[in-house]
Amino acid sequence: MNPSRLETFSDGVFAIAITVLVLTIAAPNHYRVLGSQLAHRWPSLAAYVVSFTVIGIMWLNHHTVFSHVETIDRGFIFANLLLLMTIGFLPYPTGVLGEALARGQGTRTAAAFYGVTMVCNAYSWVFLWLHASRRRRLLRPSFPESERAIATILFTAGAVVYTLVVGLAFVNAYAFLAVQGALAVYYAFDPISRRAARPASPGGAEGPGTIP
Amino acid sequence: MNPSRLETFSDGVFAIAITVLVLTIAAPNHYRVLGSQLAHRWPSLAAYVVSFTVIGIMWLNHHTVFSHVETIDRGFIFANLLLLMTIGFLPYPTGVLGEALARGQGTRTAAAFYGVTMVCNAYSWVFLWLHASRRRRLLRPSFPESERAIATILFTAGAVVYTLVVGLAFVNAYAFLAVQGALAVYYAFDPISRRAARPASPGGAEGPGTIP
Amino acid sequence: MNPSRLETFSDGVFAIAITVLVLTIAAPNHYRVLGSQLAHRWPSLAAYVVSFTVIGIMWLNHHTVFSHVETIDRGFIFANLLLLMTIGFLPYPTGVLGEALARGQGTRTAAAFYGVTMVCNAYSWVFLWLHASRRRRLLRPSFPESERAIATILFTAGAVVYTLVVGLAFVNAYAFLAVQGALAVYYAFDPISRRAARPASPGGAEGPGTIP
Amino acid sequence: MNPSRLETFSDGVFAIAITVLVLTIAAPNHYRVLGSQLAHRWPSLAAYVVSFTVIGIMWLNHHTVFSHVETIDRGFIFANLLLLMTIGFLPYPTGVLGEALARGQGTRTAAAFYGVTMVCNAYSWVFLWLHASRRRRLLRPSFPESERAIATILFTAGAVVYTLVVGLAFVNAYAFLAVQGALAVYYAFDPISRRAARPASPGGAEGPGTIP
Repeated sequence: MNPSRLETFSDGVFAIAITVLVLTIAAPNHYRVLGSQLAHRWPSLAAYVVSFTVIGIMWLNHHTVFSHVETIDRGFIFANLLLLMTIGFLPYPTGVLGEALARGQGTRTAAAFYGVTMVCNAYSWVFLWLHASRRRRLLRPSFPESERAIATILFTAGAVVYTLVVGLAFVNAYAFLAVQGALAVYYAFDPISRRAARPASPGGAEGPGTIP
Repeated sequence: MNPSRLETFSDGVFAIAITVLVLTIAAPNHYRVLGSQLAHRWPSLAAYVVSFTVIGIMWLNHHTVFSHVETIDRGFIFANLLLLMTIGFLPYPTGVLGEALARGQGTRTAAAFYGVTMVCNAYSWVFLWLHASRRRRLLRPSFPESERAIATILFTAGAVVYTLVVGLAFVNAYAFLAVQGALAVYYAFDPISRRAARPASPGGAEGPGTIP
Repeated sequence: MNPSRLETFSDGVFAIAITVLVLTIAAPNHYRVLGSQLAHRWPSLAAYVVSFTVIGIMWLNHHTVFSHVETIDRGFIFANLLLLMTIGFLPYPTGVLGEALARGQGTRTAAAFYGVTMVCNAYSWVFLWLHASRRRRLLRPSFPESERAIATILFTAGAVVYTLVVGLAFVNAYAFLAVQGALAVYYAFDPISRRAARPASPGGAEGPGTIP
Repeated sequence: MNPSRLETFSDGVFAIAITVLVLTIAAPNHYRVLGSQLAHRWPSLAAYVVSFTVIGIMWLNHHTVFSHVETIDRGFIFANLLLLMTIGFLPYPTGVLGEALARGQGTRTAAAFYGVTMVCNAYSWVFLWLHASRRRRLLRPSFPESERAIATILFTAGAVVYTLVVGLAFVNAYAFLAVQGALAVYYAFDPISRRAARPASPGGAEGPGTIP
């Protein structure tokens, strides 16, 4: 199996998970007071926006990781499947968290549940990255050695941060959701993707359409 | 990341959102009087047809915009993600509007909710276009300068029109739905896509299979 | 837009619609008597199998039609969108028919509803084919003129047959469902696809992997 | 139709089925006791993990089978459609089994139902393989004759094993679920995929990115 095939399959799972999120927002049940029903559901919408952002940016970073990978093996495929499992599961805690916040019941439990899902996801990223990068097993020669250690530190630090953020779930579920959104945005601009994006470009065969 | 990869991901989201629409039509609950139950649900079917048309034609115009883009940057990816978020969300207001019309309750609120979603979508289009076209940042050289200003005016005018149409939601939800369908059809034949479709073809490398 | 892009989008809708079918089978509500609950739901399973077969074979025939098309225009894109709308809608009548048969209520109405959906689908096929084939507008030169008239007659005859089958819905919904399955299987082996599959192969550039 | 097109469609169904699994986990209904509600639902999560693994590894093995196929015919397409039908159906028994285990009602029936689905799936694999491999009809010349008999034996043995495992459903549904997970993992490392993966690589045109 060549990497692009695995990436296409993964992209499909990302695209489906991100679109299926909308199905987790519970439909209103009283249409006579639809305005207040919808207004009441704003946390579901907030959870939708946060999880959409999370999955969208993970899709982007997934592509960045794959752009540094030259070859894949069975272990990489399974690590990737584990990662996809946590992403495909995200719609469930998203729906639960949105509903809990809308009802004002079980909010901390719901936030912790969402947080634990994200922790599993973060460790899947670490696992995928370590499998690919240890002794440069699957990396392209063009990927600089100096970046490798930095990326490993940042991925591991990410897993630690996500673990700590679970604690915030027990303090305030709204703050927790806001931090999850902020972390996703951080990953859109973090050093791994920014610095790592650069070295691959000159050596890559992707042509003029790549990110400068 | 090259543009075609981003476009494939976007196409996936369009295809899923358009197919998931059907899941928003509530199942009948009394099968003894199934005929009247289904007849009663015709507004859900109408909302399905309108949203299917909206997403289908947006998919087409999304392709037109991408055909004028030579290169992409991070900002373009995020603007595109914002656009996909509004499209992926559309099944929810579609289901709410269809159900509200079928029950004859909360119709204006539901229509306004649908309308606001479309306004967010329209502004996402403006944002995506401005990001790509300002100072011709990401445009192909073959895209004529004269078309650029026209496209900007038409995208902005579209956003204004969609904003105004929200007002119609408070007058009559059926008229609102009909106008949303009419606007989608208009965008299938509007000057941006028709005129813009032409100049790209000769310079493009798409071969004999392109739209004449 | 080249035809392969439109086909990829269409394939996505086919793949999603065929997979989303499973979500239309109602979950059991009494788990103490799960065996009888599941046994009671066999018509939902039958409707699933029939609709899966219908969509699967339509996907195959959609590919055959596209293999004879050299170029596409806006009208073809819209005719294709109309066709996809009827396919994307099919999960709804499938769920309704399965549930009606399982409850033994409203079976004829449900069958007629399914039948009307298939009639809309059949006319969409006629429309798509006529748009592509009239005056050979979009056909490949390698597609033999003699096959063109036969294909038109067979597509039209299909639409007539599907219209007549709606009448059967009012006689017996089980017979109706069986005939829908039989028609789908017929289209897997009908003269259009069988004869038309041959002439395109020698002239095509698809290489050794094509159907002999 | 060339094999890669059929494979892309199949990949789409695999990706959608694997992602739609999450929708089969029932949402909590009492948010005041959300913690115990979620804890109570752990069998649904276990069923999700098992079915995700099953579909993910089948996707991988589906690719392996296709890598040995040089050409396809109508029979292969239909055998593949049958296989996809059993995979697309899996979310339903997964949801039923998870819910039955969570309620502690109808667990054996639910497990047997899941088991029968997997038996249908196993026989679809045998059917697909026999259709492709009998008299080497569709196989690549590079696929060694010695492997052909081994693969046939292993596919058939798999179908027998899955049939026997249905018996376990009537003993203990938890043990049954664990065995289903173990069988999936076995298929990730079984001789067919491991040995068969090797011979195809040297003769294949897939380049440096293939599994060593």
